[in-house]
Amino acid sequence: MALEISKRGFEMPASPIRKLVPFAEAAKKKGIKVYHLNIGQPDIETPKTCLDAVKHYDMKVLEYSHSAGNESYRKKLVSYYAKNNIDITPNEIIITTGGSEAILFGFMACLDAGDEVIIPEPFYANYNGFAIQADVVVKPISSSIESGFALPPIEDFEKAITSKTKAIVVCNPNNPTGYLYSEAEMETLKQIVLKHNLYLFADEAYREFCYEGAHTSAMHLKGAEDHVVLMDTISKRYSACGGRIGAFITKNKAVLDAAMKFAQARLSPPFYAQILGEAAVDLPDDYFDNTKAEYKLRRDTLVKRLNAMEGVFCPNPGGAFYAMAKLPIDDSDKFCQWLLESFEHEGQTIMLAPATGFYSTPGLGKNEVRLAYVLNVDSINKAMDCLEAALKVYPGKG
Amino acid sequence: MALEISKRGFEMPASPIRKLVPFAEAAKKKGIKVYHLNIGQPDIETPKTCLDAVKHYDMKVLEYSHSAGNESYRKKLVSYYAKNNIDITPNEIIITTGGSEAILFGFMACLDAGDEVIIPEPFYANYNGFAIQADVVVKPISSSIESGFALPPIEDFEKAITSKTKAIVVCNPNNPTGYLYSEAEMETLKQIVLKHNLYLFADEAYREFCYEGAHTSAMHLKGAEDHVVLMDTISKRYSACGGRIGAFITKNKAVLDAAMKFAQARLSPPFYAQILGEAAVDLPDDYFDNTKAEYKLRRDTLVKRLNAMEGVFCPNPGGAFYAMAKLPIDDSDKFCQWLLESFEHEGQTIMLAPATGFYSTPGLGKNEVRLAYVLNVDSINKAMDCLEAALKVYPGKG
Repeated sequence: MALEISKRGFEMPASPIRKLVPFAEAAKKKGIKVYHLNIGQPDIETPKTCLDAVKHYDMKVLEYSHSAGNESYRKKLVSYYAKNNIDITPNEIIITTGGSEAILFGFMACLDAGDEVIIPEPFYANYNGFAIQADVVVKPISSSIESGFALPPIEDFEKAITSKTKAIVVCNPNNPTGYLYSEAEMETLKQIVLKHNLYLFADEAYREFCYEGAHTSAMHLKGAEDHVVLMDTISKRYSACGGRIGAFITKNKAVLDAAMKFAQARLSPPFYAQILGEAAVDLPDDYFDNTKAEYKLRRDTLVKRLNAMEGVFCPNPGGAFYAMAKLPIDDSDKFCQWLLESFEHEGQTIMLAPATGFYSTPGLGKNEVRLAYVLNVDSINKAMDCLEAALKVYPGKG
Repeated sequence: MALEISKRGFEMPASPIRKLVPFAEAAKKKGIKVYHLNIGQPDIETPKTCLDAVKHYDMKVLEYSHSAGNESYRKKLVSYYAKNNIDITPNEIIITTGGSEAILFGFMACLDAGDEVIIPEPFYANYNGFAIQADVVVKPISSSIESGFALPPIEDFEKAITSKTKAIVVCNPNNPTGYLYSEAEMETLKQIVLKHNLYLFADEAYREFCYEGAHTSAMHLKGAEDHVVLMDTISKRYSACGGRIGAFITKNKAVLDAAMKFAQARLSPPFYAQILGEAAVDLPDDYFDNTKAEYKLRRDTLVKRLNAMEGVFCPNPGGAFYAMAKLPIDDSDKFCQWLLESFEHEGQTIMLAPATGFYSTPGLGKNEVRLAYVLNVDSINKAMDCLEAALKVYPGKG
């Protein structure tokens, strides 16, 4: 009898964003330039003062930090959150290894094996991976590209709620759809979690990047304090993805204490990028104005180009740096692979994320792709030239 | 009905090493100097060339690295392992967020809920935490301070093996005992895992620190290649605990592929300390000679002082930087707290780790403590002065 891997190791999905990587590498080896719109890795420079803070930090020993993160950093973060009208203390923050670990801690601390968590789909694909690690069942409720991916109606949530439902995940503004939930929609979520006694896990990685209105944090919802767990990260707001620094924040003391035990088991978050994160709190106020203006320009360019293509529909995303587009194709997995394997336009091609990986319900998203507008306007235009040319010759029409 | 945390959040043990921290903080506030022998945080300086490599690394964007870690680092690591007679390729390595994540990946990729893993106790307490996260059952088999914590006899393993047993964990040299498993003992483990078709998870965080003979890696065991998963870290060998860089290494392709999916879900390991780790591979060969000599001096000092105290027994540890000592006390948890709360010797005291947290079998370790000899000889002597004085006046004799 051969040794076997675990069932969860078998069921664990390969990353829908990264599984095309070998095809991209092969294209590059053939000399083809690949525009990466498949992954949320911004080309925006990490603020120099933040990088310099790490360079200039003097130490003799690279020690473990506190399991909850450096106290100086947590104290500083209080002022960052205060600027966002989020009122917390340093002791309500656990610094995590990226937003990823904050999500995992939330699932582990609040949910047990077999518990259910409701997530509007399409959703960030790695929630599936964390759910499998925590042996939790994801119950998707569908939002549609036709409605611009607005929050599904309250009835859809209530239909999905069972005795095993323990939480709702909301990502606002949303990855992959770019949808920005309104204050009214957040209030709706509050009513649901209060009525059914659920946790509200709020992934707010893109808080700063809202182009059509203000951001409503789950932490703003009065009366839901015990229900809300904020899962945050510095990856996107400061273009610091490689630092792996996030935060787990809640006013629910029992949840915080439980999460802290998971934090202690892994000893501490990475030290270096905590220095970077601490310096970032001191960035001038125009940092986000400038960054946001740049992303807005990219979004406007991308969305305009997409909707000008025959058979393509892209709702205007209100936040984050993603857009979902419906394409006249048979199968987005095949199409995205074909773009890398069999297509080029003037020596260039484009890498996209098939939307199927963001839906939990089989069959959904087959003619949709996610585009991350993380490249500059010139590159986006060239990437759109590629897509436009590709759609004219792709053999598998939808 | 109030919101409830998860059962695993409730069952998750608080860190036995860190739970005394508030008492240490209170002692310090009273002006008492505390010698920290409770935690494996070395005072040995991180090599300057490694810290400088990070300082001098130029980048514009702190990007995600590859989910398996930077390729340049993995290539470099091959030569590090080759020096240790471990023959691997860059594609057999996944860089992890500390050794902690490597352990978690191993549990997640190889074991399912309810599966059993055998670990000789006392063992690194956080294995319990990772087991709870993976919903895996730890089956301890006892080693004893009288035998210096040698590997329990083969019959003890075979008595503990059931149809649910899937793995054995071996930490060599051992935390918390400092025991260095001999080649013969490692061969015994090989026979067991081959006969019963089990995984052998090898935690070799202290590989370089062997004072009484050579290190036998689980990766040296011929014919067990598919069974062995190496869980490694740079934390101890380069005094780089805060970097959070480890490695998950196996020649079992199915296990590696499964672990890679968990690695993709969390996107990437921290970028900065990969630079440090890469530079560390180029350290001159005498780096470990010098570091080892320093630790050996500390060990010799500590063990001699302990065994000179009335009623104290400390077997000579062959590796790592920990020693276990049997003390003439009633309860090591009470004693360690009392040292911080109610004792001082010339304005100083000592923080130790109660051994109970390292045993899974209730009642074991009540008169034992773990001492990490991570401070210099002068501090160790002063800490031993404190312990000697404390044992004379501690009211709860054993």
